[in-house]
Amino acid sequence: MTEIKATNVTWHEGNMTRDERWKALGSKGCTLWFTGLSASGKSTVASALEQVLVQQGVNAYRMDGDNIRMGLNKNLGFSAEDRAENIRRIGEVAKLFADNGSVAITSFISPYAVDRDAVRALHKEEGIPFFEVFADSPLEACEARDPKGLYAKARAGEIKGFTGIDDPYDEPVNAELVLKCAEKTVDECVTECVEMLKAKGVIG
Amino acid sequence: MTEIKATNVTWHEGNMTRDERWKALGSKGCTLWFTGLSASGKSTVASALEQVLVQQGVNAYRMDGDNIRMGLNKNLGFSAEDRAENIRRIGEVAKLFADNGSVAITSFISPYAVDRDAVRALHKEEGIPFFEVFADSPLEACEARDPKGLYAKARAGEIKGFTGIDDPYDEPVNAELVLKCAEKTVDECVTECVEMLKAKGVIG
Repeated sequence: MTEIKATNVTWHEGNMTRDERWKALGSKGCTLWFTGLSASGKSTVASALEQVLVQQGVNAYRMDGDNIRMGLNKNLGFSAEDRAENIRRIGEVAKLFADNGSVAITSFISPYAVDRDAVRALHKEEGIPFFEVFADSPLEACEARDPKGLYAKARAGEIKGFTGIDDPYDEPVNAELVLKCAEKTVDECVTECVEMLKAKGVIG
Repeated sequence: MTEIKATNVTWHEGNMTRDERWKALGSKGCTLWFTGLSASGKSTVASALEQVLVQQGVNAYRMDGDNIRMGLNKNLGFSAEDRAENIRRIGEVAKLFADNGSVAITSFISPYAVDRDAVRALHKEEGIPFFEVFADSPLEACEARDPKGLYAKARAGEIKGFTGIDDPYDEPVNAELVLKCAEKTVDECVTECVEMLKAKGVIG
């Protein structure tokens, strides 16, 4: 627990700058945007990366279906409009976390390039680093894993509009990192992410 | 900038617990929910508090009209439905920040008790501390300040549904902290907030 050493109050009118904040907290923010098919391994890597970073004292926070679809975005469905709004809101929240100096890690299929590009543009406007991480696992590998049986249901027509089956996935063309999750271990993928964050100057 | 000392990868399946996270980051999260009339002083105190905490290394992040109404909630207007959705989303995002170990500071009029109570319940469900901070400045004092000329416009009928003039403000009845912003200095109000956070065990 951080100890407050004095109750001396020193502040200036108006907002803190991002530089003041990051310097005081000893951290730098960015957004790591994981994208990939269902069962591509993106959430496994994102979860492991979050743990590795936090254990070393790096403020990292992951957003995924569990804490977003059940909360902030619980009033959104799966229409085209709602899917776009889902990604827009996640992008806005990731930007706030990154602004705060966190490594914001998002893990959503985010199949449409136009939506991902809008989030990238939003970060660029504000000068906040944005890294697209493509969990590049072949459809066959994802379908073979199918941990929740979703591909089977989509093939049987029980789920409509399933990414990779009857809804498109726009493969990233400018991803900062491409992870071959189906060919590598989780540890190897996490190490690639950490090395990229170091190379980009986000972590020391 | 936090230095990553090794690329050793150690993680476990599934999500980090909040305790693991807070312990590793050396911080505890909570939400400080400022509420009060326009020009009550809540944003001035919230901004100063944020600066004081961050300068001492406490991860604190403020959400206000500038970074929320222009971003996450830019697709919301001022209908009753949109006002409720505005507060709901802010509550959800504050909860995420607090879950991450930040002192989430929100500064919005948030006039309706039902909306504020919903946010309180959301935090309680998840075991995240929530503190309502009432910027308790008399309407006359707020109207006398009127830094943006909004009360004058509301009195002239140019703005409809203005809180305190022709739209109600439900005064908090169970606020954890009541700040007499009109009678005290900003420093005094900030100190009261810091003392409360210490008393509640959020900061050391």
